[in-house]
Amino acid sequence: MVGVGIVGLGTVGFDTYRILRDYRSLIETRAGVDLRVVAVADADPDRLKLIGEDPDVTTTTDAPRLIEDDRVEIVVELMGGTDAAFDYTKQAIALKKWVVTANKALLAERGEDLFGFADEQGSEIGFEASVCGGIPVIRAIRDGLVGNRIHYMLGILNGTSNYILSRMADEGIPFDKALAEAQRLGFAEKDPTLDIEGIDAAHKLCILVRLALGFPMQMSEIATAGISKIEPIDIEFAKEFGYRIKLLGVAKEEENLIEARVEPAMIPIKHPMSNVNEAYNAVYLVGDNVGSNLYYGKGAGGSPTGSAVVSDIVDMALRKTVGCSRRSPIARKDGRSAKSAEKSMSPFYMRFKAQDTPGVLSRISGVLANYNISIYAVVQKGRKVDGYVPIVMLTYEASEGSLRKAKAEIDRLPFIGEETMHIRIEDREL
Amino acid sequence: MVGVGIVGLGTVGFDTYRILRDYRSLIETRAGVDLRVVAVADADPDRLKLIGEDPDVTTTTDAPRLIEDDRVEIVVELMGGTDAAFDYTKQAIALKKWVVTANKALLAERGEDLFGFADEQGSEIGFEASVCGGIPVIRAIRDGLVGNRIHYMLGILNGTSNYILSRMADEGIPFDKALAEAQRLGFAEKDPTLDIEGIDAAHKLCILVRLALGFPMQMSEIATAGISKIEPIDIEFAKEFGYRIKLLGVAKEEENLIEARVEPAMIPIKHPMSNVNEAYNAVYLVGDNVGSNLYYGKGAGGSPTGSAVVSDIVDMALRKTVGCSRRSPIARKDGRSAKSAEKSMSPFYMRFKAQDTPGVLSRISGVLANYNISIYAVVQKGRKVDGYVPIVMLTYEASEGSLRKAKAEIDRLPFIGEETMHIRIEDREL
Repeated sequence: MVGVGIVGLGTVGFDTYRILRDYRSLIETRAGVDLRVVAVADADPDRLKLIGEDPDVTTTTDAPRLIEDDRVEIVVELMGGTDAAFDYTKQAIALKKWVVTANKALLAERGEDLFGFADEQGSEIGFEASVCGGIPVIRAIRDGLVGNRIHYMLGILNGTSNYILSRMADEGIPFDKALAEAQRLGFAEKDPTLDIEGIDAAHKLCILVRLALGFPMQMSEIATAGISKIEPIDIEFAKEFGYRIKLLGVAKEEENLIEARVEPAMIPIKHPMSNVNEAYNAVYLVGDNVGSNLYYGKGAGGSPTGSAVVSDIVDMALRKTVGCSRRSPIARKDGRSAKSAEKSMSPFYMRFKAQDTPGVLSRISGVLANYNISIYAVVQKGRKVDGYVPIVMLTYEASEGSLRKAKAEIDRLPFIGEETMHIRIEDREL
Repeated sequence: MVGVGIVGLGTVGFDTYRILRDYRSLIETRAGVDLRVVAVADADPDRLKLIGEDPDVTTTTDAPRLIEDDRVEIVVELMGGTDAAFDYTKQAIALKKWVVTANKALLAERGEDLFGFADEQGSEIGFEASVCGGIPVIRAIRDGLVGNRIHYMLGILNGTSNYILSRMADEGIPFDKALAEAQRLGFAEKDPTLDIEGIDAAHKLCILVRLALGFPMQMSEIATAGISKIEPIDIEFAKEFGYRIKLLGVAKEEENLIEARVEPAMIPIKHPMSNVNEAYNAVYLVGDNVGSNLYYGKGAGGSPTGSAVVSDIVDMALRKTVGCSRRSPIARKDGRSAKSAEKSMSPFYMRFKAQDTPGVLSRISGVLANYNISIYAVVQKGRKVDGYVPIVMLTYEASEGSLRKAKAEIDRLPFIGEETMHIRIEDREL
């Protein structure tokens, strides 16, 4: 019997408890391990009442006491945050307990410390639930693709943003309205900043880059932008050119430079990632032996995330009893470095709001030419509003730095009515 | 150091050898295991020459000798077939060696024997490579979804068939021409029977059902049909109704009945499986905690399959050294039984070749009504050829038994010009 202690009884905490309770004999039959939740801690005594009458389980508001409890061999950290969660995780590892966490912020910001300490102690940190909830993407990469080098990865890593973009695309509604709908339906929090500004996705991308590319990426090195500036007109134009707009986490390795960014990007309709809609998440990657792989499922919610937490507990329980721990994911620079955002090369979509007067196209394309940016397609379409029309250009590959400089210069031209919109195009064939 | 012996040096065997040789230090860094191929066997001495000058590797045409070799701890069976492969696998297990195999036919037909024997001996059989080549779907189901009951699963399990159907859909060409193209490009074998008649897919579905539904499905219980009768006109009509035709493996559990079948079926364009094209494979499943999951990638080829073989070897090596074996997947009836094909319920597509005379529709729909089959949509479209026109009907849910009886009766009507085509519709919303 392996004793499990859960710290944090929110949605994921409760579903983890429920799955371990209700699937105990199923798990024992399948995996040959007998797991029992022996203790649950939460700062809020009302939440602890959710456990009801379960004679096996000690409930406490004192997390450190739970961690010290000798019956607890695996500590499940589901409280969130990066301070107390860090201390508790360290405490558990110091006691040579093994830890399972769904805390992406903790691992992205302080994971290197924790993994290093776990290796020192012969302990282990399971983190399947920290990225893409119910999709077993961590074990797919770590175990399934162990015989591959991965140099290219795309992730739709935030269900809230993907839900909002799907609504905007399907119904032609603006961002604010789609956000309000997402909030009403429980797909977005009251304060949606972490989700819609790409920070949650960047946490997950950071973890994925360390694992898949083996590079010690720092949060500060991930160029991060959110979806709040996307307008329905951009989604319309994207469609016309054969693209969809997704909040995309992208990681690439080329010539010893590692690029990682999270931002709204256009992806070809034919790419399997373009069909990942609603609140679903997906990770697409290319391994040098396996080729293209894609993993798709629910990225959040109590049951999917609880399912992932349980998978880590089961995996650990089998090995912990015989002291067979896994090495933490190894991230080393190995002569590689993070690529600065401004050197990152892509084709871009640009939408200008310009006066409908002669010479406008020639002035804009002149500025772009000065920055060595070549134009692939131009469309001028749609009604004139207050004397302005939208002009859209797709560029060939350009560096983000040049693009931003050209854009700033164009935005100072007298016939430009508002800041120009630009969106990266993630299309390997352009 | 863990010694690996490879039996069978075909495409997958050689790529497995290559990956273990070239990624040895990468794998050691990542997983903390030092793997070395110490012996390779193949009945064909010319193939053994592929190894070249590798002082670590003994080559032999005598597989049993390799299996006996004390340095070989993990035996990798990549020879194919179900007779010698069975004997060698048993021999290895009897010697308490662990076995990795990519042999779907062996596991589908004789897997119960082998898994039982492995459990008796404290040995283990790794079979990630036996289903969907490079997609880590076995560990996703077995480990990632260990805390789920799975009651619904769809698989595009055969790359050759999927390639042919994609070509037919994209180019409007008939089956024979698409098959010839697939053969020319190496996507289909000279004798394509196993692939195009659904047998290869049924082997894989059999393994998946045992693992995911825990039911001891037998090959004889899987209703299996191939794609050779599909015509471009069916693909056209499917598109018109919002469907695509895929060779689909389907497994369902409902009311203690397990249904498993492989056949061409129509799937809604909005379903994520409908976008799995070319030679790609995918598995879609619903877990009761995780919800919908989809795994996508290359289902065949030396490198993708070798990647999967290597993932099993690495997983085993870590545990074998400390004698920590996993239980084989457990498949038990538990009061459940296989559903007979004729009781299987679905909506269906029917295409009649009928004379364009009055009363035809009424006679056909009359027969269907006698069998309690309700019609959802009717289309008569296209040119009259020799006095015949195609009439297409979509039915509501009907049992396959009733449908076949109705069809036989309709096909005896004087105005019907050839055997009626019927294709199942896999659409949970109809």
